[in-house]
Amino acid sequence: MALTTDSYVVQPLFFPGGNIGSLAVHGTVNDLAMGGARPLYLSVGFILEEGLPMATLWQIVQSMQRAAEQAGVQIVTGDTKVVDRGKGDGIFINTTGVGVLEHDLAIGPTAIRSDDVLLLSGDLGRHGIAIMAVREGLEFETTIESDSAPVVDPVLALLRAGLQVRCLRDLTRGGLASALNEIAASAKLAIAIDETLIPVREDVQGACEILGFDPLYVANEGRFIAFVAPADATQALAILRTYDPQAIAIGQVNALREPHSGRVTLRSHIGTERVLDWLSGEQLPRIC
Amino acid sequence: MALTTDSYVVQPLFFPGGNIGSLAVHGTVNDLAMGGARPLYLSVGFILEEGLPMATLWQIVQSMQRAAEQAGVQIVTGDTKVVDRGKGDGIFINTTGVGVLEHDLAIGPTAIRSDDVLLLSGDLGRHGIAIMAVREGLEFETTIESDSAPVVDPVLALLRAGLQVRCLRDLTRGGLASALNEIAASAKLAIAIDETLIPVREDVQGACEILGFDPLYVANEGRFIAFVAPADATQALAILRTYDPQAIAIGQVNALREPHSGRVTLRSHIGTERVLDWLSGEQLPRIC
Repeated sequence: MALTTDSYVVQPLFFPGGNIGSLAVHGTVNDLAMGGARPLYLSVGFILEEGLPMATLWQIVQSMQRAAEQAGVQIVTGDTKVVDRGKGDGIFINTTGVGVLEHDLAIGPTAIRSDDVLLLSGDLGRHGIAIMAVREGLEFETTIESDSAPVVDPVLALLRAGLQVRCLRDLTRGGLASALNEIAASAKLAIAIDETLIPVREDVQGACEILGFDPLYVANEGRFIAFVAPADATQALAILRTYDPQAIAIGQVNALREPHSGRVTLRSHIGTERVLDWLSGEQLPRIC
Repeated sequence: MALTTDSYVVQPLFFPGGNIGSLAVHGTVNDLAMGGARPLYLSVGFILEEGLPMATLWQIVQSMQRAAEQAGVQIVTGDTKVVDRGKGDGIFINTTGVGVLEHDLAIGPTAIRSDDVLLLSGDLGRHGIAIMAVREGLEFETTIESDSAPVVDPVLALLRAGLQVRCLRDLTRGGLASALNEIAASAKLAIAIDETLIPVREDVQGACEILGFDPLYVANEGRFIAFVAPADATQALAILRTYDPQAIAIGQVNALREPHSGRVTLRSHIGTERVLDWLSGEQLPRIC
């Protein structure tokens, strides 16, 4: 059995591609999937600020229902508390997920081995930029929609195929760069990735340049990485591509000369190689 | 398996006899116990307001650990979010509990039968009055401490003894009167209780009179009622008294002439009989 909990305090409550309700379902089922578990049940706890319009709550609850159906989970219990005006911020949502492990793999950073291939499930940066654009009142030629989505199906497909999945991680707060640094440090292995292979939409790249963000550090809510054994990489990638044609192999473990550095290196667009550092300074607050 | 969730937004965060942390553990393990489940695991989600002192958080977390040990549950996962100053209220806590059912009883209002005996696990009104006294800055000769506590052990003892436990309910928001009205309405049975038998401490009674509350409607956090089959009532009461000597049989189902009224009647201190109504008007907000 797997158990995970997350509270959602995102601002604004509604953003292109989703709202706090769908996000609260996606985030928690994805956490279960990242542990290699099939999500079964969710609980929902609402903390409402006095004055929240009923229509807003209703819209959020309906989104949760649709998101739960899409992710194949049942919302089985809930709780609602109301706090005085000025003591909350519209609505906060906690979701807690129960899942079941249906395989014998020990999935996690310490399972990673040298030469494992690093797969990325799709393009990067849309959730963080969608939130920022609304918050800052920025308008681009196209509306950048959050990538918020359940990643349960592709993960279960990898597991059902019996592939050697070593580690899974969703690319939420801190983005790809933070996920890789955490994993490399835990695994005490070096990871090398190729920036030129990482899919970032042109409008997201442009928004990042305007806002001063690096898409490798921006939060996603429907993207994950999978470390898989070299022999299974081709098949794993083929499976991921049935869910998102942009899925791609972006790197490898310990490919080069630093066996136990815990360091992440990046081959950049201009051909140089540099260390992809931990995030320095402030993260974007209340992104989820 | 049983799953339950609750968010805690109590104000003040600290009160005589407990704090929001111990309350968040007791409330959720008690909800599991009321479903006849043995609590196993808890998840914890914190929503912290910017500026909450670390020492306060630490004190709350330590209380949670002690409360979890006392209740025999493990806190296995957690999440922390921080919101800007003025967008929260110090700290909100969600706890979600997973438990296991180890018996074949269908516990709930619809399992109640005529002549079932109604047992009360201890004295009433302390949690609500403890909170109100702090909020209103009232001082009494003695400090009224919350009754907040886990009720897991007495419930499991009833179940282990193989007694016919028909329905369990903790007496939180709305107190004994609300619990009985909800149950009587669901079960479509009449319940008669004797007010003179209900233990209420003298200081709590006095505070209720000052504040204009009826102790039968005041919230408790460590009290419950059990409906048990008439043949098992004596043994059940003996078990409850090993945990609290004030446990007592306060009434019976459908004892009188209203077989399916869904009504709760009360024999009062002055010998009259009256309907114990649903709570009218405002409940005390943010009591848990």
